Amino acid sequence: MLEDLKQEVYEANMRLPKLNLVTFTWGNVSGIDREKGLFVIKPSGVDYEDLKPSDMVVVNLKGEVVEGTMNPSSDTPTHTVLYNKFPKIGGIVHTHSPWAVSFAQAGVAVPALGTTHADTFYGDVPVSDALTKEEIESAYEANTGEVIVRTFEEKHLDPEAIPAILIRQHGPFTWGATADKAVYNAKVLEAVAEMDYHTLQLTRDDCKVPQYLLDKHYYRKHGEGAYYGQDNAKSQGHAKRS
Amino acid sequence: MLEDLKQEVYEANMRLPKLNLVTFTWGNVSGIDREKGLFVIKPSGVDYEDLKPSDMVVVNLKGEVVEGTMNPSSDTPTHTVLYNKFPKIGGIVHTHSPWAVSFAQAGVAVPALGTTHADTFYGDVPVSDALTKEEIESAYEANTGEVIVRTFEEKHLDPEAIPAILIRQHGPFTWGATADKAVYNAKVLEAVAEMDYHTLQLTRDDCKVPQYLLDKHYYRKHGEGAYYGQDNAKSQGHAKRS
Amino acid sequence: MLEDLKQEVYEANMRLPKLNLVTFTWGNVSGIDREKGLFVIKPSGVDYEDLKPSDMVVVNLKGEVVEGTMNPSSDTPTHTVLYNKFPKIGGIVHTHSPWAVSFAQAGVAVPALGTTHADTFYGDVPVSDALTKEEIESAYEANTGEVIVRTFEEKHLDPEAIPAILIRQHGPFTWGATADKAVYNAKVLEAVAEMDYHTLQLTRDDCKVPQYLLDKHYYRKHGEGAYYGQDNAKSQGHAKRS
Amino acid sequence: MLEDLKQEVYEANMRLPKLNLVTFTWGNVSGIDREKGLFVIKPSGVDYEDLKPSDMVVVNLKGEVVEGTMNPSSDTPTHTVLYNKFPKIGGIVHTHSPWAVSFAQAGVAVPALGTTHADTFYGDVPVSDALTKEEIESAYEANTGEVIVRTFEEKHLDPEAIPAILIRQHGPFTWGATADKAVYNAKVLEAVAEMDYHTLQLTRDDCKVPQYLLDKHYYRKHGEGAYYGQDNAKSQGHAKRS
Repeated sequence: MLEDLKQEVYEANMRLPKLNLVTFTWGNVSGIDREKGLFVIKPSGVDYEDLKPSDMVVVNLKGEVVEGTMNPSSDTPTHTVLYNKFPKIGGIVHTHSPWAVSFAQAGVAVPALGTTHADTFYGDVPVSDALTKEEIESAYEANTGEVIVRTFEEKHLDPEAIPAILIRQHGPFTWGATADKAVYNAKVLEAVAEMDYHTLQLTRDDCKVPQYLLDKHYYRKHGEGAYYGQDNAKSQGHAKRS
Repeated sequence: MLEDLKQEVYEANMRLPKLNLVTFTWGNVSGIDREKGLFVIKPSGVDYEDLKPSDMVVVNLKGEVVEGTMNPSSDTPTHTVLYNKFPKIGGIVHTHSPWAVSFAQAGVAVPALGTTHADTFYGDVPVSDALTKEEIESAYEANTGEVIVRTFEEKHLDPEAIPAILIRQHGPFTWGATADKAVYNAKVLEAVAEMDYHTLQLTRDDCKVPQYLLDKHYYRKHGEGAYYGQDNAKSQGHAKRS
Repeated sequence: MLEDLKQEVYEANMRLPKLNLVTFTWGNVSGIDREKGLFVIKPSGVDYEDLKPSDMVVVNLKGEVVEGTMNPSSDTPTHTVLYNKFPKIGGIVHTHSPWAVSFAQAGVAVPALGTTHADTFYGDVPVSDALTKEEIESAYEANTGEVIVRTFEEKHLDPEAIPAILIRQHGPFTWGATADKAVYNAKVLEAVAEMDYHTLQLTRDDCKVPQYLLDKHYYRKHGEGAYYGQDNAKSQGHAKRS
Repeated sequence: MLEDLKQEVYEANMRLPKLNLVTFTWGNVSGIDREKGLFVIKPSGVDYEDLKPSDMVVVNLKGEVVEGTMNPSSDTPTHTVLYNKFPKIGGIVHTHSPWAVSFAQAGVAVPALGTTHADTFYGDVPVSDALTKEEIESAYEANTGEVIVRTFEEKHLDPEAIPAILIRQHGPFTWGATADKAVYNAKVLEAVAEMDYHTLQLTRDDCKVPQYLLDKHYYRKHGEGAYYGQDNAKSQGHAKRS
């Protein structure tokens, strides 16, 4: 069942330790088959060096295990909420990567200070409110999903344009069109958080990039006018134009 | 004698360099057989790349060497005190891991600022007082054990719920149900100290997590209601419940 | 066509991940054949582990692709401007290396605080102005080259003596007599930025080195009086003189 | 000639990149044969991956090359001065290791804040004055040695008890009974500088360790009363005593 997706999600999970995004088992990746309405996720608490594609657990959009002998990630209810509320995303990643967690613990959004950020995130990566006592004590992991959705609604943010958030007192969630792109976004967030931390220590000036730089860099890589890489129609023309 | 425990303690020691917790020989792990009242510990000053299971030294609860041709770790008296005073622990680790030492030198406890911390430590990881001139000049290593015990008594802390301390002007000791779990706790402490350091530079606000988050995360992984991982009875039910 | 140069530029590109200067595809190296007026550059958005010498793209000094099936780096117009305006340079590197980017985002030049800096850079590594809305919206990458040239002109800097710049809100460009030397300079810049960051946090005193130290160290490695290494005529004599 | 010493100095040099103490060729190790009055040193500007034992250069205590086809390290005159003025040392290391350089550039001594420091350095690692214009312009490298000696004399420090210094605006020199021990001391200095940096950011309190802790830890590893490791007479007795 969903063997290709299991392989893909397995490989996406295995990139987390390779990209220095996880310590021990502190991370998980899922990917969804939108037609079937089923997603595949890492089992809970399994060491990355022991993980196999067949360990992946299949879950439906009610959060029920449909196939698999292992317990799915304890964060499965968070993934379930996000797949339901963000209908265009195809993969989700959660880690405790150290730079992103440092911002999450401080309650500080990762600001858009440069082109590295603008290439992937079309604005600051927001930080959610801390979950309340009631949210934590009842359906904690599902409520973590709800607080993500609420943050994007309240701030009028587009989850496709800013595919990441910091959960206050916890850490980052990222997502993307596929499990693999969600992992890519998790690494970009970590890299940008590291650089932003140092920038914020070097100066007290406001260093946020202007809107036109966000526009230029984000759309250089995304959408119809994109010309970065080998797959974009305008790439060759652009290079020759200059 | 205690060949299985020697192998286990050897392997736990070898995880220290793998987890980037030691430079040179600056660390040691021990594990105890409570029935026999004997513990096994790394020999003093031996390079990790030269270490063999048969080098492990067997020590009784008076701190006397019972078996082994090498000198045990110079910190053996500290381990002896902890095994006597904390009767439920099964393994102990000492390192000079850099982030934990940075806090120890500053005399700053590692605060509970997020879920990474709360998953393992049920509150701030305390810092002891500096040892006095008298404590240092007489039975120094044993007194290091005594100051750990005293700190937990004075602060009314449970060594099972907070299996770690920073010795002022020195560095961390961690412990756990086994030598392997004590190593795990040493790595969590180092990871949390790194993230907390950066959080404390990012903001002057009080970022401590509330008691109900500590409760939720600590008991998600520990005790009867635990549902994280593959070995907890409630895991599967929890995943399906949402 | 230009097979030797392709191999050389390929190898220079492959040093970027080895020297921890790139994440994903965030970097590119080019090298020029001045006699033919053609330069060779990395293709756009190709993973370093997939890169082959034959993937290198040949471009002329108008920025037109002359040979190659892949799109050249999206930064090709920046390289084109620099090769035209800095006629003595033979190779160019662009990365998003984290320490250099941290300074670029803060708008802080990398100051000359020690001999590590003075051995390679004959003064502070400057930071450019941010590109204006007009510069970003029209011929962005070419204008990035123009802002580099303008910064050197306005500050009366010699691009051979200071072979590096930080683009505000973006990151570093370095260059050198060859592609390989440009990579060397990219690593020196990153190393110096890391050390300078920490120096600036340790003290508020002015720590800039005096002109005579810049003279001594820069000319110990560059020009007729150089005596560092195995290739300089005075080396042997110097060692014996002391 | 001195084949054993060449091998030993070669191996000590090769530990520098393994211990992350050098970038490119920015470091050198020498070792001396006191009976013959000759020392062996790394050739200048040779990559570590190309280095061979036979490349080592033999130099006498006047700083003259006695054997070897390559130019010796450009820092050879500094080594020469130290071997002449510190008659008990057997090996010398110079690196640009990043944490030690950060302190050297700031003009801040590496303070004795914990037992990691006290195990190796019997007090703060001092920082020298910056070399004057005259000192830099004439016999620069020899004057670097003279400023080291002067600093130890003026501060009444014992180069055996504190086998390290930071040259202002430059970086660290360390030494020891052998080339290998000098490398060990270079790594300890780097580790301690890293931890001290973070400690100094965590608190403004004075965290220097008291004299009795320095005494305890330094003499636990050095001199007649030493009991750390496998080679000290008192070790076994100490472990059994407690």
